[in-house]
Amino acid sequence: MSSRVRAIVAGATGYSGRDLIRLLLNHPKIELAGAFASRSGETIPLAAIHPQLTGLARLDCQPFDEAVIAKLDPDLIFLATPNEFSHEIVPALLETGATVVDLSGAFRLRDAALYPKFYGFEHARPDLLEKAVYGLTEFAREELRGAKLIANPGCYPTSILAPMIPLLKAGLIADDQPIICDSKSGVTGAGKSPTATTHFVEVSESFKTYNIFKHRHTPEIAQGLGVVNESRALIFTPHLLPINRGILSTIYAKLKTGVTRRDILNAWRDAFENAPFVRVFAESQMPEIKFAANTPFCDIGCAVDEAAGQAIIVSAEDNLLKGAASQALQNANVALGFDEGAGIR
Amino acid sequence: MSSRVRAIVAGATGYSGRDLIRLLLNHPKIELAGAFASRSGETIPLAAIHPQLTGLARLDCQPFDEAVIAKLDPDLIFLATPNEFSHEIVPALLETGATVVDLSGAFRLRDAALYPKFYGFEHARPDLLEKAVYGLTEFAREELRGAKLIANPGCYPTSILAPMIPLLKAGLIADDQPIICDSKSGVTGAGKSPTATTHFVEVSESFKTYNIFKHRHTPEIAQGLGVVNESRALIFTPHLLPINRGILSTIYAKLKTGVTRRDILNAWRDAFENAPFVRVFAESQMPEIKFAANTPFCDIGCAVDEAAGQAIIVSAEDNLLKGAASQALQNANVALGFDEGAGIR
Amino acid sequence: MSSRVRAIVAGATGYSGRDLIRLLLNHPKIELAGAFASRSGETIPLAAIHPQLTGLARLDCQPFDEAVIAKLDPDLIFLATPNEFSHEIVPALLETGATVVDLSGAFRLRDAALYPKFYGFEHARPDLLEKAVYGLTEFAREELRGAKLIANPGCYPTSILAPMIPLLKAGLIADDQPIICDSKSGVTGAGKSPTATTHFVEVSESFKTYNIFKHRHTPEIAQGLGVVNESRALIFTPHLLPINRGILSTIYAKLKTGVTRRDILNAWRDAFENAPFVRVFAESQMPEIKFAANTPFCDIGCAVDEAAGQAIIVSAEDNLLKGAASQALQNANVALGFDEGAGIR
Amino acid sequence: MSSRVRAIVAGATGYSGRDLIRLLLNHPKIELAGAFASRSGETIPLAAIHPQLTGLARLDCQPFDEAVIAKLDPDLIFLATPNEFSHEIVPALLETGATVVDLSGAFRLRDAALYPKFYGFEHARPDLLEKAVYGLTEFAREELRGAKLIANPGCYPTSILAPMIPLLKAGLIADDQPIICDSKSGVTGAGKSPTATTHFVEVSESFKTYNIFKHRHTPEIAQGLGVVNESRALIFTPHLLPINRGILSTIYAKLKTGVTRRDILNAWRDAFENAPFVRVFAESQMPEIKFAANTPFCDIGCAVDEAAGQAIIVSAEDNLLKGAASQALQNANVALGFDEGAGIR
Repeated sequence: MSSRVRAIVAGATGYSGRDLIRLLLNHPKIELAGAFASRSGETIPLAAIHPQLTGLARLDCQPFDEAVIAKLDPDLIFLATPNEFSHEIVPALLETGATVVDLSGAFRLRDAALYPKFYGFEHARPDLLEKAVYGLTEFAREELRGAKLIANPGCYPTSILAPMIPLLKAGLIADDQPIICDSKSGVTGAGKSPTATTHFVEVSESFKTYNIFKHRHTPEIAQGLGVVNESRALIFTPHLLPINRGILSTIYAKLKTGVTRRDILNAWRDAFENAPFVRVFAESQMPEIKFAANTPFCDIGCAVDEAAGQAIIVSAEDNLLKGAASQALQNANVALGFDEGAGIR
Repeated sequence: MSSRVRAIVAGATGYSGRDLIRLLLNHPKIELAGAFASRSGETIPLAAIHPQLTGLARLDCQPFDEAVIAKLDPDLIFLATPNEFSHEIVPALLETGATVVDLSGAFRLRDAALYPKFYGFEHARPDLLEKAVYGLTEFAREELRGAKLIANPGCYPTSILAPMIPLLKAGLIADDQPIICDSKSGVTGAGKSPTATTHFVEVSESFKTYNIFKHRHTPEIAQGLGVVNESRALIFTPHLLPINRGILSTIYAKLKTGVTRRDILNAWRDAFENAPFVRVFAESQMPEIKFAANTPFCDIGCAVDEAAGQAIIVSAEDNLLKGAASQALQNANVALGFDEGAGIR
Repeated sequence: MSSRVRAIVAGATGYSGRDLIRLLLNHPKIELAGAFASRSGETIPLAAIHPQLTGLARLDCQPFDEAVIAKLDPDLIFLATPNEFSHEIVPALLETGATVVDLSGAFRLRDAALYPKFYGFEHARPDLLEKAVYGLTEFAREELRGAKLIANPGCYPTSILAPMIPLLKAGLIADDQPIICDSKSGVTGAGKSPTATTHFVEVSESFKTYNIFKHRHTPEIAQGLGVVNESRALIFTPHLLPINRGILSTIYAKLKTGVTRRDILNAWRDAFENAPFVRVFAESQMPEIKFAANTPFCDIGCAVDEAAGQAIIVSAEDNLLKGAASQALQNANVALGFDEGAGIR
Repeated sequence: MSSRVRAIVAGATGYSGRDLIRLLLNHPKIELAGAFASRSGETIPLAAIHPQLTGLARLDCQPFDEAVIAKLDPDLIFLATPNEFSHEIVPALLETGATVVDLSGAFRLRDAALYPKFYGFEHARPDLLEKAVYGLTEFAREELRGAKLIANPGCYPTSILAPMIPLLKAGLIADDQPIICDSKSGVTGAGKSPTATTHFVEVSESFKTYNIFKHRHTPEIAQGLGVVNESRALIFTPHLLPINRGILSTIYAKLKTGVTRRDILNAWRDAFENAPFVRVFAESQMPEIKFAANTPFCDIGCAVDEAAGQAIIVSAEDNLLKGAASQALQNANVALGFDEGAGIR
């Protein structure tokens, strides 16, 4: 026990925090040393907040308190906290020497100028934006090793960037048509706070678009695709599905002349040969949310109209796992030199 | 138009209010003259609150204001408002001479002493509790004619009392075993306010009991069954279903010696021969929520173990219609001398 | 009663047939004279097949039999039958002189050559394909008057063609980018036969694409958009939503230079000024399935990135109503000279 | 690898078989040596049947074949097969010397005379009914050690017997009122075959009773409660919930005079002190399906009206795990002398 890495989770009251804790409780090399809310309040047993954890987690969830955290002397800090909160506390937490994995968007965008428009606050630490490693694990293993600040990707961006980056790198995608990402997410993506948007009756037996042209994941996706300055190059439309967990993205991309379905599959095989958590659906079966839900995988597949040069890429993942908690742990594993799948498989 | 009865709806922002408005818009003899929220705020188009009503309702929803209502001079007032609110405003509204149909629980219990425990307030008008007609239409047509204050029954009580009253009246039920009502409701029954309980993620793919032994519909059911003073005679357990609309009650009752399934069906046929909105399922098909949802019916059926003298009564209804809005209109129709099914069928 | 138009419904056992019957039972000028299955079998009460109709429909559902139908001498025949079945029986039914509204795809495509590939059978009556009126009511009122064979549009095509035809007619859409239709449908769209695809467990808490590049509605949409011979001009991707009723289509279209959101709204207002069943969402609120489900409306709205010249059109409808039964009745109303909304509103 | 116990799963195409395989793939002491369907057919990769297992299970699923199985020489055989199938093959499988865990009902009832009525077949091996250990693990650890034929309990019986056996043993339950079990199950309980009953549209937004007084789990529950010959002593009503996984049972029991809530909790604590997979909810929070779904736990809680002497017991479990696959593994672990929670926690 004593030789294990000591980790804490802040933002333990939310869905991502809960799933992260569930994973950490089974990790062979990490010990969960503390759990914190992202605000003040009472100390209560984790199992009172998340009765799912009854008999599994005997820890309390404490109000966030830097002094208490300092005493715990953690090696590893996971923040499943609101954007503004992460933005505010990360600098001090980094000074403790711990590795910080931030699941919020506070350190994901390299360009500080985007924060006021998309996140509603002025970013105080552009220097940290430069240092932060954007933890789309499959494409960042080198930079992750030994990293101290890891910006864990958003759920939608993960589902889009995982399949698209290899295709762009391989030069398969034409640029005379925007990449259109029609993405659909379950309700856990909207967080645990009760709102009119998350009321059962407003979601069940319905389906809707939201935040068209305005979602804060748009610049993150553009950054990942390398099309930041080409405003016409990316269209991202999020939708709300009447399910708990899971994202499916249907991505429309024009192919360069002569590109075939086989070229796409080859590009993926090269990129993900040693990636334990990306599954390529190479046959006729396409990814579906139910195959990926409750797993740490991002599943990817494609249909190609070779005559027309049009590809439809389909990806599916669990927004709380590969889109948040399990990818955070994947990143921590790589940063600390553990097996990438430790505590996840 | 001018010769039609003028009605207003207060509490127009909620689910029952919305469904009531939808019905009133098609009523041949009633004109919807105004719609009100149950609190202060801005005047906004009904269709902005309930986009379902786009192109159907051109009315605004105004903040509740007795002076504005007085000017409209309504003949008929529907209150789909909170219990305390109805309790407070009904006396003044009655003085306008209008017929008041209150969908809340404020005037349902004859015994004022039950209000502090079950509703959290001291009842100020025991005299009105005595005058109010409890509008379980099928059993109250005589008293409803010309009534000025109608207490519209609760959704759970309607589903239980409709099948059970005829059996008790016919003397079929033994009294050495409690009547056990295991009831399950969709989420619209919990109202439109977002709470942890109504969050999609907390409801979907789950199911739970709530308020065991404490639900405020318990004394209303006991009153309807005529077992008020026999605390052991009734057990009522509400559950929350991951659906929008509908209640199914599974009711366990000991039968007197020799009572058969046929006796039960006969008692129902006698009671509901001319009832347009109770459907007796007399064959092997039992009521299911999907048959009654989005309809004004209460469906009832039974299975009987004649050897053991045990009956299982199953009822299903739409909690927003027969459990609220359509029964309110049924009651108004009878009170005003219209055809009972006007605007409902 | 005697002076009313006599109608029959074949395919009464399915979901569209059931909803059509429910509408017909309330129609002021049409009498439901008979209900038929699309195959042989026993005669059973409609309410035994659809317990929802208990107490509403006293009719039996009979096995399909041309002689029995001839005796009923119907003025109006609705076919909610499989494609092959409609293809086979329509010629004989037309000879009875009745108006035939076919809800299947058997007479929707003008080009008979498309049937083997998309419907799996050789079309025997190209002459009828030419005569059949494609009943997207809002654009076909002239041809519908007095029509004898009406091909009722598919559910997906209705949701796409209703918003897009006015924009194409007004010349607002550029043609250097395909029109991309990302459509999502509830499970009633897959019919009532139990299959692995419609099993609750395979659908609930999931979401998937299906029939990419191959769905039989593709040529119907292309025909309606007037892009039949331009294979690159249309991409249509259907998805299966874990809900019962409703379609939402998210449509991506490049705009001609200078076209604004206002231009789109104006084109829609011109097209739908007197259309009782298309609702234009002109404010920030976009269509959602829950607003249109259980209604006869097609709701349409749009978001426009004017700088990039990209429009996202969103439409929502109930696939069983505007996508099938209520549009069939709309078409019959226009064909027979009744008020377009009779029995629907 | 070679020193691990070799196991096979027959019935690998169903939901229980799939979940069992998922568990076995992580078991430290068991090697999954083969997977079989319960009928003839082609050999196909498990991941083609259950795409969830892509990248996890590289095994094929073969048609059932005793010769092939004999060659694999398994130590442990799990049967997630139909009742008749298990009934037929168990005798031969036992002769191989392997430990057989049968998840069907073929060997659960001690009284062979009940099979024709409840299972539709004459039981050929009453001798094996006597030898089979009924594997409600928490109450059968002694008999399980070294057992060769284990009858894994049904999902409903597990949810009822786990909380009730300790109360009956402790003498807390009165016998002048039947024990009424109002149970609700998700759709995986109905199996994977598509039927009208499991069609998404027939289940979603609905809820129903089924098989009242006739469900085949009734004699199994009666046997477990020890009330086999008292036909009036048990009422069991199953319901179908619109969810994938999980059972909640609401159980009504009359208490003997003077019995308190504390007595119930004490009886449970005594019974489950060392039971890793029963969680007692001793505070005000009652079990809900979402707390137990996707876990190997049976959660139990109670509300008591001490004045009336009435208890309401609430239990929740995942019907595919504690109600099937994880309990099967729990039983195998105990039978083989492994840690009870191996491969489950």
